[in-house]
Amino acid sequence: MANTLPDLEKLIEKFRRLPGVGRRSAERMAYKILDMSDAETEDFANALLDAKRNIGKCSICFNLCQGEICGICSDETRDRSVICVLEDARAAASLEKVREYRGLYHILEGTISPMDGIGPDKLRIKELLDRIGDGTVEEIILATNSTVEGETTAMYLAKLLRPLGLKITRLAYGIPVGGELDHADEVTLARAIDGRREM
Amino acid sequence: MANTLPDLEKLIEKFRRLPGVGRRSAERMAYKILDMSDAETEDFANALLDAKRNIGKCSICFNLCQGEICGICSDETRDRSVICVLEDARAAASLEKVREYRGLYHILEGTISPMDGIGPDKLRIKELLDRIGDGTVEEIILATNSTVEGETTAMYLAKLLRPLGLKITRLAYGIPVGGELDHADEVTLARAIDGRREM
Repeated sequence: MANTLPDLEKLIEKFRRLPGVGRRSAERMAYKILDMSDAETEDFANALLDAKRNIGKCSICFNLCQGEICGICSDETRDRSVICVLEDARAAASLEKVREYRGLYHILEGTISPMDGIGPDKLRIKELLDRIGDGTVEEIILATNSTVEGETTAMYLAKLLRPLGLKITRLAYGIPVGGELDHADEVTLARAIDGRREM
Repeated sequence: MANTLPDLEKLIEKFRRLPGVGRRSAERMAYKILDMSDAETEDFANALLDAKRNIGKCSICFNLCQGEICGICSDETRDRSVICVLEDARAAASLEKVREYRGLYHILEGTISPMDGIGPDKLRIKELLDRIGDGTVEEIILATNSTVEGETTAMYLAKLLRPLGLKITRLAYGIPVGGELDHADEVTLARAIDGRREM
């Protein structure tokens, strides 16, 4: 009989589900947990549960938030005439790090992807249109990733929004073609915001 | 005001404590958790707590175990005349994977390291001597890592055990010098067991 440790195996399997974690890394992580104090492990478990429990979506822009409305939508000093449209909340966090952009965000929660059966109706496009309705917004920056799906989504939105008389821009080609927004370094992201062009 | 998400930051910090995880990886892991269902996240938290709660140390060999005595010490088919002495439980798990070794283990829980103030008294050496006492054991394989501390510990144990009339062996130099046991691939480990030499 081998030395079976079902609860260690279970933990290794959980770590393996995390992005970029193979079997060997997952093992090291699980052994690290066994080396921690009980209090540290409880803290870790609580951090998982608290993050999941307390972090929801902003009811305006669908960015991550703790509470009803995110810190950006509720910040009176942000420029309310510009909305930067993004695929996901991670992209918003990347852009915020640059401190170049002072407008608002709108998270689509995906991209148009006919192959995966994701049409425009599955994205937060209706909610974006609702936000534009009152005339405050003057510019929409389409900052979806520079992938096929991201470009398709930007194209679709540009066509949809152009009749409304808004300035529609796309991030400049500072972002490597084929790459994803949250892989870009901060300098590249800053340049991409600077050089955004009208569509 | 930025979009502050204290519970996300806390979770990222927890992931950063894991071996080999930098800021960017930790962020990806935390976002992955937010993408999981509530049930999956609870499973993850429970896996952490269960592993910590249910996995202890074998009261004979100090290997990891769920219960009082580990699966290896309680396995009647294992060769009780050989004890393989290791630094930690991870090394035992690595050796078990090879399926070459059929004897017992003894986990020292460290190495002699005067620089860190760890003397022989901090290791499970007394418990090893207690196990040898009854005459069943004929061979001790000193399988500490091939590092300065590992070699020092092996040397110390060889000197201590030789007067007892046991066969004292050390793993063969299949393991790269300066390397650690749990980095070795299975073939190298198998060869190291085959070619072990008397000290």
